[in-house]
Amino acid sequence: MNTHANQNRVLETRFAPISTAFLERLAQVVDPSQILSNPAQREAYAWDNTGIRALPECTVLVESAEQVAEVLILCNEFMIPVVPRGAGTGNVGGALACHGGLVLSTQRMNKIIEIAADDRLAVVEPGVVNGDLQQALLASGLFWPPDPSSAKSCTIGGNLAMCSAGPGAVRYGVTRDWLVGLTAVLADGSIIKTGGRTSKGVVGYDLTRLLVGSEGTLAVVTQATLKLAPKPEARRLIRAVFSSVEGAAKAVAKLMATGSPPSAVEFLDGASLNLLRQESSVVIPEQACAMLLLEVAGDESDVEQQAQSVIRRIAEFSPIEQTEPVSSSDAEEVWAARYALSPILKKLAPKRVNEDVVVPVSKLSELISGVEAIGADLNIPIINFGHAGNGNIHVNFLVDPEDDIIMGQIKPALDRLFKLVLKLDGSLSGEHGVGMQKSEYIEWELGGDSLQLQRRIKAVFDPNGIMNPGKIFP
Amino acid sequence: MNTHANQNRVLETRFAPISTAFLERLAQVVDPSQILSNPAQREAYAWDNTGIRALPECTVLVESAEQVAEVLILCNEFMIPVVPRGAGTGNVGGALACHGGLVLSTQRMNKIIEIAADDRLAVVEPGVVNGDLQQALLASGLFWPPDPSSAKSCTIGGNLAMCSAGPGAVRYGVTRDWLVGLTAVLADGSIIKTGGRTSKGVVGYDLTRLLVGSEGTLAVVTQATLKLAPKPEARRLIRAVFSSVEGAAKAVAKLMATGSPPSAVEFLDGASLNLLRQESSVVIPEQACAMLLLEVAGDESDVEQQAQSVIRRIAEFSPIEQTEPVSSSDAEEVWAARYALSPILKKLAPKRVNEDVVVPVSKLSELISGVEAIGADLNIPIINFGHAGNGNIHVNFLVDPEDDIIMGQIKPALDRLFKLVLKLDGSLSGEHGVGMQKSEYIEWELGGDSLQLQRRIKAVFDPNGIMNPGKIFP
Repeated sequence: MNTHANQNRVLETRFAPISTAFLERLAQVVDPSQILSNPAQREAYAWDNTGIRALPECTVLVESAEQVAEVLILCNEFMIPVVPRGAGTGNVGGALACHGGLVLSTQRMNKIIEIAADDRLAVVEPGVVNGDLQQALLASGLFWPPDPSSAKSCTIGGNLAMCSAGPGAVRYGVTRDWLVGLTAVLADGSIIKTGGRTSKGVVGYDLTRLLVGSEGTLAVVTQATLKLAPKPEARRLIRAVFSSVEGAAKAVAKLMATGSPPSAVEFLDGASLNLLRQESSVVIPEQACAMLLLEVAGDESDVEQQAQSVIRRIAEFSPIEQTEPVSSSDAEEVWAARYALSPILKKLAPKRVNEDVVVPVSKLSELISGVEAIGADLNIPIINFGHAGNGNIHVNFLVDPEDDIIMGQIKPALDRLFKLVLKLDGSLSGEHGVGMQKSEYIEWELGGDSLQLQRRIKAVFDPNGIMNPGKIFP
Repeated sequence: MNTHANQNRVLETRFAPISTAFLERLAQVVDPSQILSNPAQREAYAWDNTGIRALPECTVLVESAEQVAEVLILCNEFMIPVVPRGAGTGNVGGALACHGGLVLSTQRMNKIIEIAADDRLAVVEPGVVNGDLQQALLASGLFWPPDPSSAKSCTIGGNLAMCSAGPGAVRYGVTRDWLVGLTAVLADGSIIKTGGRTSKGVVGYDLTRLLVGSEGTLAVVTQATLKLAPKPEARRLIRAVFSSVEGAAKAVAKLMATGSPPSAVEFLDGASLNLLRQESSVVIPEQACAMLLLEVAGDESDVEQQAQSVIRRIAEFSPIEQTEPVSSSDAEEVWAARYALSPILKKLAPKRVNEDVVVPVSKLSELISGVEAIGADLNIPIINFGHAGNGNIHVNFLVDPEDDIIMGQIKPALDRLFKLVLKLDGSLSGEHGVGMQKSEYIEWELGGDSLQLQRRIKAVFDPNGIMNPGKIFP
């Protein structure tokens, strides 16, 4: 694999700045009203959830696959970086124009083209907001399972780019499990279809899943055929409180090793509980050092039975209060508090470093005690919460950008965290992706040969390296 | 996409025959006892389920990833085609040495390396037989969902190569949904790992699923980390008999559009029922023109309720006898008869042409009436059965190789079948794959740009085109 230096060199190409000549040509392929070139307009496309700012030189609000193709052909000709962007809710800088160039916004491609309830499919454009699709599906009794916490604002296109997930992944899996086909535009402007409309299919390579999670580095998705699931008619939330993180982690491992998985298995550590005590009205016992939010879902006739099964399976780990299903209004309050954790943290520590490492569930207890040791050794406050049923924990390093000493500890802390995760057979990212933020670490996980292979696959799709440069690859 | 003639030319390379010099070098990288070179030994590797014969020039029984790497490096040096092979149970010639060369058999790599029940994973070598894995899992209460009808003899490696499935796919999905990581050897001998041991992960491109279904044309899988599911404690079979194919097809569509999917939704047409009447002891009403085998699975406490829900959902389509769950001994007999259909057909019509087309479930009725029209127009007896819940029907053209007229009708019949399937938004193959058998048709489904892209991805993995040549690509 070391004979392909030539093919890799294309990824290092230097780009051209956006010129008047380029803008003139651009105005011939899209309506001038679709081009945002003044700084105030572009500023809205300079940010995502990382807090990093990267001002694009131009934003284009594309309206069709054909327009995407024209724009990509032009960018290839002028060597302009293209940054596909949905709602900009990502956590790793995936939608930021870190090499300048053009942000290709899909916000106007927001049509739900078809809901085919009989085949349990929805055909959508990439700019459809996840939550809007769920709303549109209500009447059909179906839903699309990927449920990132940004569901009310993030787009399906962004979900596809990052292979998003949320609490429901513990039962339903992630974005890659919930689609059957794509239409995508390659860097050279060719429009391809992958997959189709059937729940099975093995004709040719699985380009559908090669594109999912590729973070806009291979192609621009312009249409997706999504698989839908029947929406459970009832849910029950079970709140289990523990005096130690270890007890909670072991309860999760037991829960996942036996019987049917709940529809959510969320974990909150002691520091998260302190935040909730301060910032919400949820009442949490004083001795509580960890909490699990366990949700079951199904027919009204069987959720109670599912809930009792969950309670039985965790009983041996001695929760410190009677564990029982909470009322639906209390459940709403608890979920709202859980979802408020990220925004609260962002307010308290705008420069927090938010990782989403994942380990096999059986290693959860080791992960959390290891993370606590890192925080203690390096004197960094850490808050852990997340999708414990998948072993996927959001580790938040709460740093103060004014404090040079603590800022100097971030790199050693991340190094130790990622080494720990890989030692535990885990992965650096469960659902946020690599983006700009983790690219320097991915060779630790993938190894050199695999990374080299992935660069060469990238070069097949995008020989000039214009598609979202600076993302994924170190 | 038309500027890459160079990259494609490598796929047309002519290969070298296996020489004494090659065999001498081969005997330095594997033990001589692992090399089968006399014709009688090689004959066993010349066949699969298609009835086509293609004698390899040599068979190597590899025992480790390192040996696979050495063999591939050697084959690259000598320009020898490599045909990875599991148990040879495939239906499309995927494991046949149609360009001569070397069959790389994984039959000795048959270790179950680890069953990690806590993480619901099994780590296996590719030569492990699917049924042997299921046996080994019994004590854990878990199983691996892919269930092709050849499960007792086919290997996991073959299942991965073809993205196999069976009746259970209607609830559980296909092979690509049931693994988290692979170890694979590339044509240049580099050994890569894809994915890992976690149920989520988005670091880099999804090479795991790029390899699944790639039919040995990209790499040789030497280890797989499989996801496991809890084995349902109880099952119920519901037999529903209809006076028309249309009634049965509509019942399937209704069943799949509402509520939870059963664990199997199998369809048998009138001709299949006639075969069963002749060849099994299953009693089938005289007026029956179509039958559905509907299975539900779950806890003992809820299968009865699931069964009643299924019966309610299909009642409006007027099955011709009282539809009710059958006893477990009757269920065994019915399933045995269903699984015997393929072998019976093979005995009756050894040169039958067996397709496994798939359409959206809502189009099932149109598919089957269209297939019947093709048979009537071209005077070819046809038998249809299969996994109706996925819209995946095995269309069997029963041809007599002695009958020149009927043999001349096969090509027009396949042309019409595939055109019909694509018109109904379907795919040429649900689970058998492309292999040698469907390669001339796949451009109809994929389109030229996608096919070109796939050839270029193939060239990244295998620049000299030695990996399973003559498969997938026309």
